[in-house]
Amino acid sequence: MDVDTIIGDSCARDWQTVDSDTVDPVRFAVIGLGWFTRGRALPALADSDLCEATVLVSGSAAKAEQVAAGTAAQHGITYGDFHDGAARDAYDAVYIATPNALHLEYAETAAAFGKHVLCEKPMERDTDRARELVAACADGGVELMVGYRMHTEPAVRRARELIAGGYVGDPVAVDGDMSQRLLDRVNPDPDQWRLDPDLAGGGALFDIGIYPLNTARFLLDADPVAVTGRTSHTHEAFAGVDETVSFALLFPGDVTGRCFASHNARQASSITVTGTEGTVRVEPAFFQDQDRQLHLSRGEGRATVELDRVDQMREEFDYFADRLRGSAPILPDGDHGLVDMRTMEAVYEAAETDRWVSIA
Amino acid sequence: MDVDTIIGDSCARDWQTVDSDTVDPVRFAVIGLGWFTRGRALPALADSDLCEATVLVSGSAAKAEQVAAGTAAQHGITYGDFHDGAARDAYDAVYIATPNALHLEYAETAAAFGKHVLCEKPMERDTDRARELVAACADGGVELMVGYRMHTEPAVRRARELIAGGYVGDPVAVDGDMSQRLLDRVNPDPDQWRLDPDLAGGGALFDIGIYPLNTARFLLDADPVAVTGRTSHTHEAFAGVDETVSFALLFPGDVTGRCFASHNARQASSITVTGTEGTVRVEPAFFQDQDRQLHLSRGEGRATVELDRVDQMREEFDYFADRLRGSAPILPDGDHGLVDMRTMEAVYEAAETDRWVSIA
Repeated sequence: MDVDTIIGDSCARDWQTVDSDTVDPVRFAVIGLGWFTRGRALPALADSDLCEATVLVSGSAAKAEQVAAGTAAQHGITYGDFHDGAARDAYDAVYIATPNALHLEYAETAAAFGKHVLCEKPMERDTDRARELVAACADGGVELMVGYRMHTEPAVRRARELIAGGYVGDPVAVDGDMSQRLLDRVNPDPDQWRLDPDLAGGGALFDIGIYPLNTARFLLDADPVAVTGRTSHTHEAFAGVDETVSFALLFPGDVTGRCFASHNARQASSITVTGTEGTVRVEPAFFQDQDRQLHLSRGEGRATVELDRVDQMREEFDYFADRLRGSAPILPDGDHGLVDMRTMEAVYEAAETDRWVSIA
Repeated sequence: MDVDTIIGDSCARDWQTVDSDTVDPVRFAVIGLGWFTRGRALPALADSDLCEATVLVSGSAAKAEQVAAGTAAQHGITYGDFHDGAARDAYDAVYIATPNALHLEYAETAAAFGKHVLCEKPMERDTDRARELVAACADGGVELMVGYRMHTEPAVRRARELIAGGYVGDPVAVDGDMSQRLLDRVNPDPDQWRLDPDLAGGGALFDIGIYPLNTARFLLDADPVAVTGRTSHTHEAFAGVDETVSFALLFPGDVTGRCFASHNARQASSITVTGTEGTVRVEPAFFQDQDRQLHLSRGEGRATVELDRVDQMREEFDYFADRLRGSAPILPDGDHGLVDMRTMEAVYEAAETDRWVSIA
């Protein structure tokens, strides 16, 4: 991968292995019909040639049917109906977009029915439950992918390819951040599940800090061995979970990472890898509504490459469908997701103890 | 300070209080004639209307005289001559640009002679010696300034004014980095003093990590209360001092900082303050040979302001001269510099102990 290729074909689906003309689309039961599902996931599934939403699952039958009526989905059912096996012949896989602490139960039911699982990140509210989720999918013989949409974001993939190809020399450091004003700009509801430790498991770290964390791992193709961090909050609504988190990572080979995430800072996102020979920076990086820029420096030169915007959720769904219909492995699988769960829990432990914590 | 004003008059010397037509220039004895002095400091002094280099001091009389012959300086003397009081009527102040561990002895002599002191950063090889340096200047009744040239770098000053004026809302986080390839690109000598712990006191942290550290303090107008960090090296030449350092800071009010410095990474430098309402980023930030860019975001908007390049060393010298000839206080004084010394030593202690270390 060189910069000319990136400029010429920045959004190439280098990961695609199957042809939508020759495989059946993957039929999804979509579980959890919050704003992200309605605004992002369902439109992406509607646009996809490799996927379709056939069953919509919500807490309320009326809501499920109402949302289904606005899509091509044939079934709108309740969570209870889903567990009871309603419409189970109408889907091949589930997309789980419920509050974090409910991921496990839907994955267990899906796996028991032999349905593949695409589970939103973080996998669950804690590592133990995430491990149960992995085990349930293994026991059911179904594929499990965790919804890290940066793995199919073209700007991030191009950055990763440049780094793997030696563009920055030996990586030395990675810096990433993601912030937004959750209460003031995104969702003012102080009772939203993201603020409930029992449902969310964590705050800014679990919700958005996982982006720089996971993308750092993806760009370096390495997992952290130790972390430390600090958490804080200013709004009373964040009494139960972190509003802001700052954490530092140590990767093998003395590569260090520094990350920041906040639900009370101006919307911003970036990730930068600095190496012995150059730097690669994606900024803006993580929010879906912004065009991506890839900022490169090497030798005496600097360049900014503007990439077209893709529908990140469609890329993610299509990647999962490609892996189900083809034979290539899923990279962000359950074991991959477990590393983030352990790392995030270690950040919280470090924040409690003022120490660096090793990641087993 | 608003963005229109910055665009219109980005490099205004808002700090200047005296008129070069009405005050005598400050006459400097320049101590230490390494490449930085010859390439940066002496040309800046030659261009200045408020300063002049009248005495050059080196380990070798021949070198001192040879360098002096290429400037307007009347005297080229040895370190021993300086301590003996040679040419002491020919200068009002000293600029100390020797290896770190020699700062104290020249400051002591200068203070005993009643000469003001502009001392390069870091102040000394350790905090105890830096405290002695402060005490010597106080005892001699002379002014002491530490050479933090970012305090008079226009891009950094404009960023600071924006932040002080509420442009980013409440600051939440600061990120800074500085890196270069010391051995491969700057100075290949494995015996250079920067690699000698007795002369330097520290490696990448003392030499360049002090830029993001001090600039973070300057931009936030706050001092850290706790730090942690990691150090590492790959080249054997860095067996005695850190080649790479990663550190995290906690400021009052739960503002967190993340910094990185390396003598073995591609030349890069930046500093970013993220707040509740916006972000301000200077990138490139610290190296003298690059034009500055101020990257701003607030609300839905983003802007990049390009600033003219100034002679940073001339700005620093002129600020010092302005403070000596006028009555305004010096901001980067000895007590200001001591905070960096204590902070950097705490980073090393944290790296040894895997802990966060409070800064007394």
